[in-house]
Amino acid sequence: MPKPIYVLNGPNLNLLGVREPEIYGYTTLSDIESNCRTLLSTSGHELVFRQSNHEGELIDWIHEAREQGCALIINPAGYGHTSVALLDALKALSIPVIECHLSNPQTRESFRHHSYVSLAAKGIVAGFGAFGYELAVQAALKLL
Amino acid sequence: MPKPIYVLNGPNLNLLGVREPEIYGYTTLSDIESNCRTLLSTSGHELVFRQSNHEGELIDWIHEAREQGCALIINPAGYGHTSVALLDALKALSIPVIECHLSNPQTRESFRHHSYVSLAAKGIVAGFGAFGYELAVQAALKLL
Amino acid sequence: MPKPIYVLNGPNLNLLGVREPEIYGYTTLSDIESNCRTLLSTSGHELVFRQSNHEGELIDWIHEAREQGCALIINPAGYGHTSVALLDALKALSIPVIECHLSNPQTRESFRHHSYVSLAAKGIVAGFGAFGYELAVQAALKLL
Amino acid sequence: MPKPIYVLNGPNLNLLGVREPEIYGYTTLSDIESNCRTLLSTSGHELVFRQSNHEGELIDWIHEAREQGCALIINPAGYGHTSVALLDALKALSIPVIECHLSNPQTRESFRHHSYVSLAAKGIVAGFGAFGYELAVQAALKLL
Amino acid sequence: MPKPIYVLNGPNLNLLGVREPEIYGYTTLSDIESNCRTLLSTSGHELVFRQSNHEGELIDWIHEAREQGCALIINPAGYGHTSVALLDALKALSIPVIECHLSNPQTRESFRHHSYVSLAAKGIVAGFGAFGYELAVQAALKLL
Amino acid sequence: MPKPIYVLNGPNLNLLGVREPEIYGYTTLSDIESNCRTLLSTSGHELVFRQSNHEGELIDWIHEAREQGCALIINPAGYGHTSVALLDALKALSIPVIECHLSNPQTRESFRHHSYVSLAAKGIVAGFGAFGYELAVQAALKLL
Amino acid sequence: MPKPIYVLNGPNLNLLGVREPEIYGYTTLSDIESNCRTLLSTSGHELVFRQSNHEGELIDWIHEAREQGCALIINPAGYGHTSVALLDALKALSIPVIECHLSNPQTRESFRHHSYVSLAAKGIVAGFGAFGYELAVQAALKLL
Amino acid sequence: MPKPIYVLNGPNLNLLGVREPEIYGYTTLSDIESNCRTLLSTSGHELVFRQSNHEGELIDWIHEAREQGCALIINPAGYGHTSVALLDALKALSIPVIECHLSNPQTRESFRHHSYVSLAAKGIVAGFGAFGYELAVQAALKLL
Amino acid sequence: MPKPIYVLNGPNLNLLGVREPEIYGYTTLSDIESNCRTLLSTSGHELVFRQSNHEGELIDWIHEAREQGCALIINPAGYGHTSVALLDALKALSIPVIECHLSNPQTRESFRHHSYVSLAAKGIVAGFGAFGYELAVQAALKLL
Amino acid sequence: MPKPIYVLNGPNLNLLGVREPEIYGYTTLSDIESNCRTLLSTSGHELVFRQSNHEGELIDWIHEAREQGCALIINPAGYGHTSVALLDALKALSIPVIECHLSNPQTRESFRHHSYVSLAAKGIVAGFGAFGYELAVQAALKLL
Amino acid sequence: MPKPIYVLNGPNLNLLGVREPEIYGYTTLSDIESNCRTLLSTSGHELVFRQSNHEGELIDWIHEAREQGCALIINPAGYGHTSVALLDALKALSIPVIECHLSNPQTRESFRHHSYVSLAAKGIVAGFGAFGYELAVQAALKLL
Amino acid sequence: MPKPIYVLNGPNLNLLGVREPEIYGYTTLSDIESNCRTLLSTSGHELVFRQSNHEGELIDWIHEAREQGCALIINPAGYGHTSVALLDALKALSIPVIECHLSNPQTRESFRHHSYVSLAAKGIVAGFGAFGYELAVQAALKLL
Repeated sequence: MPKPIYVLNGPNLNLLGVREPEIYGYTTLSDIESNCRTLLSTSGHELVFRQSNHEGELIDWIHEAREQGCALIINPAGYGHTSVALLDALKALSIPVIECHLSNPQTRESFRHHSYVSLAAKGIVAGFGAFGYELAVQAALKLL
Repeated sequence: MPKPIYVLNGPNLNLLGVREPEIYGYTTLSDIESNCRTLLSTSGHELVFRQSNHEGELIDWIHEAREQGCALIINPAGYGHTSVALLDALKALSIPVIECHLSNPQTRESFRHHSYVSLAAKGIVAGFGAFGYELAVQAALKLL
Repeated sequence: MPKPIYVLNGPNLNLLGVREPEIYGYTTLSDIESNCRTLLSTSGHELVFRQSNHEGELIDWIHEAREQGCALIINPAGYGHTSVALLDALKALSIPVIECHLSNPQTRESFRHHSYVSLAAKGIVAGFGAFGYELAVQAALKLL
Repeated sequence: MPKPIYVLNGPNLNLLGVREPEIYGYTTLSDIESNCRTLLSTSGHELVFRQSNHEGELIDWIHEAREQGCALIINPAGYGHTSVALLDALKALSIPVIECHLSNPQTRESFRHHSYVSLAAKGIVAGFGAFGYELAVQAALKLL
Repeated sequence: MPKPIYVLNGPNLNLLGVREPEIYGYTTLSDIESNCRTLLSTSGHELVFRQSNHEGELIDWIHEAREQGCALIINPAGYGHTSVALLDALKALSIPVIECHLSNPQTRESFRHHSYVSLAAKGIVAGFGAFGYELAVQAALKLL
Repeated sequence: MPKPIYVLNGPNLNLLGVREPEIYGYTTLSDIESNCRTLLSTSGHELVFRQSNHEGELIDWIHEAREQGCALIINPAGYGHTSVALLDALKALSIPVIECHLSNPQTRESFRHHSYVSLAAKGIVAGFGAFGYELAVQAALKLL
Repeated sequence: MPKPIYVLNGPNLNLLGVREPEIYGYTTLSDIESNCRTLLSTSGHELVFRQSNHEGELIDWIHEAREQGCALIINPAGYGHTSVALLDALKALSIPVIECHLSNPQTRESFRHHSYVSLAAKGIVAGFGAFGYELAVQAALKLL
Repeated sequence: MPKPIYVLNGPNLNLLGVREPEIYGYTTLSDIESNCRTLLSTSGHELVFRQSNHEGELIDWIHEAREQGCALIINPAGYGHTSVALLDALKALSIPVIECHLSNPQTRESFRHHSYVSLAAKGIVAGFGAFGYELAVQAALKLL
Repeated sequence: MPKPIYVLNGPNLNLLGVREPEIYGYTTLSDIESNCRTLLSTSGHELVFRQSNHEGELIDWIHEAREQGCALIINPAGYGHTSVALLDALKALSIPVIECHLSNPQTRESFRHHSYVSLAAKGIVAGFGAFGYELAVQAALKLL
Repeated sequence: MPKPIYVLNGPNLNLLGVREPEIYGYTTLSDIESNCRTLLSTSGHELVFRQSNHEGELIDWIHEAREQGCALIINPAGYGHTSVALLDALKALSIPVIECHLSNPQTRESFRHHSYVSLAAKGIVAGFGAFGYELAVQAALKLL
Repeated sequence: MPKPIYVLNGPNLNLLGVREPEIYGYTTLSDIESNCRTLLSTSGHELVFRQSNHEGELIDWIHEAREQGCALIINPAGYGHTSVALLDALKALSIPVIECHLSNPQTRESFRHHSYVSLAAKGIVAGFGAFGYELAVQAALKLL
Repeated sequence: MPKPIYVLNGPNLNLLGVREPEIYGYTTLSDIESNCRTLLSTSGHELVFRQSNHEGELIDWIHEAREQGCALIINPAGYGHTSVALLDALKALSIPVIECHLSNPQTRESFRHHSYVSLAAKGIVAGFGAFGYELAVQAALKLL
């Protein structure tokens, strides 16, 4: 049986779709998980989909994916801009890593222009909102 | 009944008043909590007063304050200078956010001159030691 | 009839698949064009697929897409890092703009980390090689 | 009799409450002076409250406060970001110096992020509008 | 009766035409004032034309122009590069502000390349010597 | 017969007045050309008025103006911020060069604050919209 | 009985010797712990040897070492470059602090050249692989 | 028959020897071409010698040299400092690339100190005027 | 009769010898004036010795010295680091300008390392306390 | 017979233990040499221990060690921060290079934070005073 | 008799051809000297060819060349990037100075991109290995 | 008998008065030495006056002055801008150190604006040519 694809979500993403939905939309992280699961259904790959506000927990999960996963999609949120530890965890992976952002960080504040995660990513998808996760899943399947 | 005011304290502040009291004074975080509680006693507002060395736990508490609090006072300590994740958590709040520092960071090392938390704060109180928390609580009440 | 989707390619991309194919692969720009056309075949959208080494010609084509296209995918290659003129042309568009890169620029030289084109792009796809164009086309269809 | 507390206001603050009151509010510098005077009434301290658009005049007044005042609150406005001379004047004081800003400078243009005055200030209050002066006065009383 | 147009001149401009006329020319600030007055004669607008070496006095005059003038032309000379206070004074104006320089600052020392005044100016005229004031006056009339 | 005055316009200026006229106004580049021609009518000078999105073509025209023109007004648009080649072309001219911008670049993104063209310009006119061309033409006549 | 020596290890060091041993060697963190224990056996000092991917947990342990340890050796891994909170925790210690790195960070990416931990360290050992821990333990014994 | 050596000249070099010959000398680009041709006459190599003010045309010619030339000498003039696209074109060549400048850029303005072309050049000759082309041709022959 | 030598003193220097004399010494600005006058007594030069906290007043006096003085010694204090206006005033002088500092600014905060006044000064004397004025006067006499 | 280990000491280290011994301690460079010799006595390696204030002499000795030594320990003192020539000399060595500092440079002035020598060093020992040399010798023996 | 041409070589160049010849080639500095002597044989110029690892000795030789030489070719090696003293020595020469590098410094570490020697050099030859000296000698002869 | 005053001169100063005397004047280093000796004649202090192009020799002499001199005047020339080793040598002195420059470095190239020597100097004299040495000697006598 093929190994699962990991989708990890960083800090504050648990608020997605809950906070001011009239502005940010009603798509929740749970909806995104469902969309990814549907997309993967015919591939034989399981989906491991998680969110944490704790940097250390994200690192623990990346180590888990290193052994149990076949690809890793990560939306590091705020930790992407500041965490060398996250980068080091990702560099220890031999499976493909894909970075995914809901918005386009280059059009936001200057401290969001740099991402440590990008240094360990095979590819990047940014700016397409929830649909970006589906593009990332497709890319992961293509890379396998 | 009015919602409580949250006062969150970042890393190493648990050492306050314990570490070398002959130098830093005998005021502990617990004393500060008492002073704030006294100040709030006639306002009808409860006080939620916490400290953590874990960035992720602080973010979890900010999310809690987002739903259950009416104002948030935060002394982010070291995380204020480095955490975009903390900033993002605070930006998701519609209640007033007040940043509080015991010392004046501008007279310390240059890496303490910038604070991500300031970008989400309505106001800042710095340099007045333990008394600064009381000023911050007054400001919170004024802003409500 | 729906308006066509424009895919514009910047300098040196005409060498794709021709130059040292044993290293860079045998996929040519023409192959990418075919893949995109196939992907679009059921959507009713035409494909306008072009390449130029001339900054001015790319700007002329962006102006053309402004009137005649419904979406614009651009791989600006070297001009993305240096051309404010290209950015200004793209900012004049009201149709969605998607930036596409074969490789992940963040893992290359530092002068490739900044892209003026990103400032006008709705979304970015980078690092997935030729397959990235197909992701970009899907994203374009989703955005319409 | 206790020495007076000085509150000095820098350039353009004379326009407060006068300029576009529907936007900036109707609180004038004169109202702030009254509030501070009321707050001080039971303390036995006089209030010296002044405003000038002239850097040299502010320095003269700081020298005066050095001899005749017991504490100094200063809203340096634009001079805070550019005046080493003001800093030097303040560093000659042995009485407590408190910096006060109506808005939070960290959320404004980058040239407002640095303040020379902060280098000589015991504490800082920023972002609470006119009420910040009252917090500053309380802090001054506490520091005496 | 239409309100007057203010033309304010910053530090050292009183030396114009006096200092080494064989090099800098014989046009004095007084000549420029005459030229501007002539140009305005048919417009019905009065001219208020002043020079000061004192930053605070320039700010006082800008406040005066805010109430009594219909447009402001300013050659801030050295203060343009260093004065946030001047910028703040100008930002409080709702009448058009035009920045005027005798020489082209971009071809001089690097510390003259940035102007705080530019941040509050509708338009800029630089490098045309005394004639630049006449262009600025025309622009002011056009903007009214 | 006097030599003509050249007015050269850089990339994207062909969209002027066409793109979203309700926002940017209905003045087209052709209208500006007419205004300049009218202004020059009594001077005996011809007008050469051109626009190109091609950096190389602009350089060719500057070389042409070097031999056939008596003054050069240039709105370099995006190329002004990035083109050393344009600067070198202009430095080869002995006729006066005037830089003209519709808006004030100092109030826009930071990459628009520097202009290579300014280094070769006698004078600069910026921020007065279409009317700025007329000021530039007057300045050119004055400089001849 | 003498207090124990603490050896704390930061994020991703749990992978040591496990990940691609043919490249990085077969020495695990557990082997290093054994070597240190052996080295300390005749000194009378206990060894507290731990690893965590969680910044907050490392800070908790540093606080513990502050009370219960006689020296602290820390390999902060990725957190050393980014964590002011870690620095503050270490600065609260009066026992000697030694920073230890497996590789020489100065020959790696530029973001690894700065270490906040170094600001609180008595001494640094870097680049000697697993053997560096033994040097650090010797240094700790020497410093006691 | 040996493949030709390409000598490509960037923007504004067509003015060489024509513009103010009493200052810059009477050597034209055509003279340089003759000197190079003479130098090559006994080598069996043809000379392809061209100049363009168009960045795109230079890139097209570099692509041509990639297939038809045996060595490339380029004086990129202003484009050398700003064109990543030119760099990318040169990096696609497996034949030797030599950068040639008439003057020594390190003694001119700071924006001339960096050259993208240098990153793809085997060697550099600068500061010897027209004679530098002859040195470059000799070097090219040596490298073949 | 020879023209006088001007000695101008910038902000806060009026406090010299008055503020904490046990630390800074009992030499007042008035004592320095006396020493200079004595030193000049046999030279036939008058001494004009002044102090002001007002930047504009210092500029006025520099203009006066331009016409009436034969040399200018200036201790610009805090204004030296920030005032382009002061620099411009000094550059208009054809008489020798000498910059004098009581302390050595290079051993103080980094914002004191740059002096605009130095750009217009013939020579600099720094770090010799009150005696530095006497060295400056000797230098002035030597330069005449 | 095994080759000797070289220990080279840079400028001013000849003053060690001589200059203000009550402050810096009585350990001289000669004492350090003895300690190292003792430590090496059972290893069969000779010790070559030298000091020079001359950069060129240090380079000469590094060249000597390249042929005659089996390991090199260097305390470059001030030259470590400024000498590319020293770096180049060290990069020519195939024997292990160890950098040794008496103090921790990261806690001193910012110009001591960078070391060219580190770029060629296998490992670094800093901050342990004279004992650091003994750690370095142990590391050298381990690396052989 | 014509004066000799000086060729001076900086630190570590004595290792050329000796160190790892299978990698760097077997050309020694002595071979280069021979080639230059041969090239000069018909010119009537003597050759002075030297190498030193001592900055001061290089300066002494430059002073000697100032009086006794007719041209100076210098490969400053590591000192070129760091030595203002070397620059000053070269600026005192009225004979032509040519800078020569074996490799192309622009493709190496960033601290090799700047050369103080370039500021005093008429021309630069870099990247052509040993053959570059011959080009430099030819250029010297041409410049005489 | 009082200890001698040391006057040390750095690289290239041996050329003083020799190189192009019609431009730089005929004052040689030997003349300066005579002037200093004359000035010292009545003080009882000997003069030790030396020049070297060798950084190491200057350091050796500083060490000598540390034991045998009572004051040190140094014109470090080019080494002042680049030598941390020189700074460290000077910081080991307890006798007063005076930095002396013939010209005013602040009006020369930017790399001359910083001096490591200034960090160890009690005072600085710059810009007064040969006469500056006499001022420095006077200052030295005053400081003793």
